[in-house]
Amino acid sequence: MRPKIVLFGDSITEESFREGGWGAALANHFTRTADVVLRGYSGYNTRWALRAIERVLGAEGVGGGGGGEGVVAVTVFFGANDAAVHDRVSAFQHVPVDEYKLNLRSIVSFVKKRWPEVVIILITPPPIDVEGRLREPYNKTSGLPDRTNEAAGAYAKACISVAGECGLPVIDLWSRIQQLDDWEKSCLRDGLHFTCIGNDVLFKEVVDTLGKESVSLETLPVDLPLSSEMYPNDPLKAFESQI
Amino acid sequence: MRPKIVLFGDSITEESFREGGWGAALANHFTRTADVVLRGYSGYNTRWALRAIERVLGAEGVGGGGGGEGVVAVTVFFGANDAAVHDRVSAFQHVPVDEYKLNLRSIVSFVKKRWPEVVIILITPPPIDVEGRLREPYNKTSGLPDRTNEAAGAYAKACISVAGECGLPVIDLWSRIQQLDDWEKSCLRDGLHFTCIGNDVLFKEVVDTLGKESVSLETLPVDLPLSSEMYPNDPLKAFESQI
Repeated sequence: MRPKIVLFGDSITEESFREGGWGAALANHFTRTADVVLRGYSGYNTRWALRAIERVLGAEGVGGGGGGEGVVAVTVFFGANDAAVHDRVSAFQHVPVDEYKLNLRSIVSFVKKRWPEVVIILITPPPIDVEGRLREPYNKTSGLPDRTNEAAGAYAKACISVAGECGLPVIDLWSRIQQLDDWEKSCLRDGLHFTCIGNDVLFKEVVDTLGKESVSLETLPVDLPLSSEMYPNDPLKAFESQI
Repeated sequence: MRPKIVLFGDSITEESFREGGWGAALANHFTRTADVVLRGYSGYNTRWALRAIERVLGAEGVGGGGGGEGVVAVTVFFGANDAAVHDRVSAFQHVPVDEYKLNLRSIVSFVKKRWPEVVIILITPPPIDVEGRLREPYNKTSGLPDRTNEAAGAYAKACISVAGECGLPVIDLWSRIQQLDDWEKSCLRDGLHFTCIGNDVLFKEVVDTLGKESVSLETLPVDLPLSSEMYPNDPLKAFESQI
């Protein structure tokens, strides 16, 4: 049975199988070695994620039917919605930063209890380009952005702190993206969601982080013989050692 | 638990999560409604597929641990390798057309026995652009293409015939692609594998065919409340009816 890598997060996870998306790139990278299971929920914050987690990752969720076998890694990628400004148009998504930390810890605890050996990677929210946010129709009435880069940074810091407490690897996407030239436009298409370049940054960070935790093409077995391993005169022979 | 759509095939399936790929596009299309499970094996013909099918789709395969619950559809997409010319460089992949038909029938029987209610879609091999094949390094020594469009057409016809006998929907990709202008270059990048345009043709055909078999965004339930369904003053209320 193939190992599974579960992507649990908000819209940036839900849309990760669009053209150039980081989720599809992961599925392609692990094409013969692991299944990438998409569990992205657009608009969700950690409060809603916690409300849904039993159904998403519990006994009837991923793996299903009491199973869930083979899950080797889970990415937990929330915060972009928690960090929505508390008194603006996306206020209903806002979660205070202290609750965000508590919720993240609870999500980690749930995953650890379900799969004690699993690799959990926390991913911070990305930075925000306010100009991009202001182009969104629902921000135009007030003229005030629903998200700010300072708030995203505070939640990124909180996420890194939870990862430290829990001893987990973390991808500091907020800082990583801001290292790139013209990141506001090159990496973000609407001030929040990724362009192909932004997607590629996250894809590479996830592959690197998984690799450091021994989840890589080098460590995972390939499912069934490769055609390059077939004996030209007796191709079926290659199956003998594997099946 | 989310329904699963399994893609079983050769390299055109294995690489279907590359940028612009038909598999990734399906996963994105069904992002909150179904899991798309990738089971592509580069270079495989129906003979090898049949040798591997118990491991791929059997009790320890997709779904795993005796499960396999929730599989609603399987695409079966072989023939491009079976149709390799029998006395040229890819001869080790060749399977005679009569055996191809028998093997396809056996694959269909296996899937029907495992999941009696599942939608099975047969996909014919794509057409071949010989010029594109001749640019491949391993065809340069002999100067003869390893695949021809006539052979692909014969296997496509055989695939359609098996679908008819078994009462299954079939995507006649060999004919469909050849309806497009400049299909040799617009749809195929090496005379066999798809460009983004070729991928998009197949993606749309699969969505259409699944839809006719009642596997669509209209019939599948959405996993968890959409953020547009949240009550602004009491977002968690939306979960009450679902969890």
